[in-house]
Amino acid sequence: MRIVVDAQGGDNAPREILKGVLKFLDENRESDVEIILTGNIKTLEKECPVYFKRCEKRNDKITIVNTEDIVKMDESPSIAIKKSKSSMMVGLNLVREGKGDAFVSAGNSGAVMAGALLKIGRIHGIHRPALATIMPSFTGSINLLIDVGANVDTKSRNLLEFSLMASIYLKSVFGLENPKIGLLSIGEEASKGNRLIGESYELLKSSSLNFIGNVEGNDILTGRANVVVCDGFVGNAILKFGEGIVKNLYKLLMKEMKKNPLSFIGLIFFLPVLAKLKKILDYAEYGGAPLLGIKKPCIISHGRSKARAVKNAIRVANEFAINKGIESIEKEMLGFKGE
Amino acid sequence: MRIVVDAQGGDNAPREILKGVLKFLDENRESDVEIILTGNIKTLEKECPVYFKRCEKRNDKITIVNTEDIVKMDESPSIAIKKSKSSMMVGLNLVREGKGDAFVSAGNSGAVMAGALLKIGRIHGIHRPALATIMPSFTGSINLLIDVGANVDTKSRNLLEFSLMASIYLKSVFGLENPKIGLLSIGEEASKGNRLIGESYELLKSSSLNFIGNVEGNDILTGRANVVVCDGFVGNAILKFGEGIVKNLYKLLMKEMKKNPLSFIGLIFFLPVLAKLKKILDYAEYGGAPLLGIKKPCIISHGRSKARAVKNAIRVANEFAINKGIESIEKEMLGFKGE
Repeated sequence: MRIVVDAQGGDNAPREILKGVLKFLDENRESDVEIILTGNIKTLEKECPVYFKRCEKRNDKITIVNTEDIVKMDESPSIAIKKSKSSMMVGLNLVREGKGDAFVSAGNSGAVMAGALLKIGRIHGIHRPALATIMPSFTGSINLLIDVGANVDTKSRNLLEFSLMASIYLKSVFGLENPKIGLLSIGEEASKGNRLIGESYELLKSSSLNFIGNVEGNDILTGRANVVVCDGFVGNAILKFGEGIVKNLYKLLMKEMKKNPLSFIGLIFFLPVLAKLKKILDYAEYGGAPLLGIKKPCIISHGRSKARAVKNAIRVANEFAINKGIESIEKEMLGFKGE
Repeated sequence: MRIVVDAQGGDNAPREILKGVLKFLDENRESDVEIILTGNIKTLEKECPVYFKRCEKRNDKITIVNTEDIVKMDESPSIAIKKSKSSMMVGLNLVREGKGDAFVSAGNSGAVMAGALLKIGRIHGIHRPALATIMPSFTGSINLLIDVGANVDTKSRNLLEFSLMASIYLKSVFGLENPKIGLLSIGEEASKGNRLIGESYELLKSSSLNFIGNVEGNDILTGRANVVVCDGFVGNAILKFGEGIVKNLYKLLMKEMKKNPLSFIGLIFFLPVLAKLKKILDYAEYGGAPLLGIKKPCIISHGRSKARAVKNAIRVANEFAINKGIESIEKEMLGFKGE
């Protein structure tokens, strides 16, 4: 398996990207994964000499492809896709040409989406790709939210396709049989919600998916549904709201503890509880969001990804490719009648 | 000021409602607020004899209006509004007839919205009322989210009106001059978002409001904007997601502490930090969501409201009425040109 990793995508690139690649290889010595890193060799060498050297030494497993340009984090997708010499676009091209089997980037997600669509293309029958992400779980369940921002002004047919792709994804990467699909609405009754929800409810109900009906915002974290499907505008707002809570929670804890030194004593005993909480709320553990509907596995890791998140994104890309997730979606789409 | 309180609305009615009313009166001895309780006298007497007796004794301040029916928590609004003898509809009618100045209920929110619209009616110029709620704040700022579920399939003109009403509400109840209005989107750039956002951005920009542009989900809690305006579907999903996080967080903390008795020792020292956290995340403190756009102050308290939330809802209703929030909205609407 050859996984192309964008060495210059993300807030902590290239350092954490290289570190993550090495971490993956160290922890998966038996795996047949080979990494193709795209990035400017001089920059990598200059900005993180130690990890660059370690990457060079692992030339049995790592190939570095020199690139001359980068896509900035805040660049508009329409400009980004024209940067054909960037680490991102070169990487996507390698996958298109069959020189890589999957693509991982922690870079500008709008640019990855536009680039993947343009360079690699959609799976036949899928009208729009969607970005899916594993949400924290308080019950040990697997909770996937789709779409978290690839699309806005979604139609019911799109939501049906997102549900199908998410269902296959959970099966191929997490081994989950017959995942429960919930349609995000503002009440459990079929009649509740907006026009899109009314139409989508009927489509999902008459499909072959394990549709459990409407779910609400509070169900996203509990595993009532394994897949919560929604328009990308709604999903993105929820995802960022959740990130905001987690980030501010930690900040608040630190601030309050500094005010009251005694609470540090408490912290020693309380630490295991907080560690568990951190693990649950920590998105990095799950390793990025698959862009479902593209002809090759594309994993978009969070812009703030550190080495652990990058390592996990590579793991997810590998599992998705090994388990032939894309082929399963293609096959299902052939016989799929949703309407 | 005469505030009508629905004694039989909410999961903890009538007990917590009566308790909340008494709490308000106890803590506001100088205030001129009189409470009109609507509910079935026999039921109130039977289900909470102690608080009922205390209410009877406060007949200088509390009038109990006997009603014969109730609106159930899960009843459809179209059925609920026909229950003209219910504590909710009788209460709304009292306000319509000028026998009460404001209305508070912790009951079925869909029913309150439909009832208020039908019985009391819209402010001239407002096309649709909206439900606003104060969100937790990690920075001490005031963060209002509007709409959290009164409307779906909102138009840009509606979002403009919601922004105006929220702006006046924050001024009259919280004394906040010129509140910052942010439009919820999935990127800060004007071009990001869906069709509704594009149209609303232009409307808000050319209005007289203090519009700061697009904000994202993570900005809801930080006070970057004092008002975050969005479609009711999005707002409701976010609100419930947030409630789900808070609820599950507490459950998790309790569960983990039971597993590890030593963490209890930690808890003693850590308690002030958690208390602060609870205060921030606790919606009850703020006392319910105003239904803005109705001709009289209507405050919808959370279905799970306990006495403290009811007390605060009465306080908010009183402040909104005293400060002539409705009159300000009416006046602004006369001269308001949003498009």
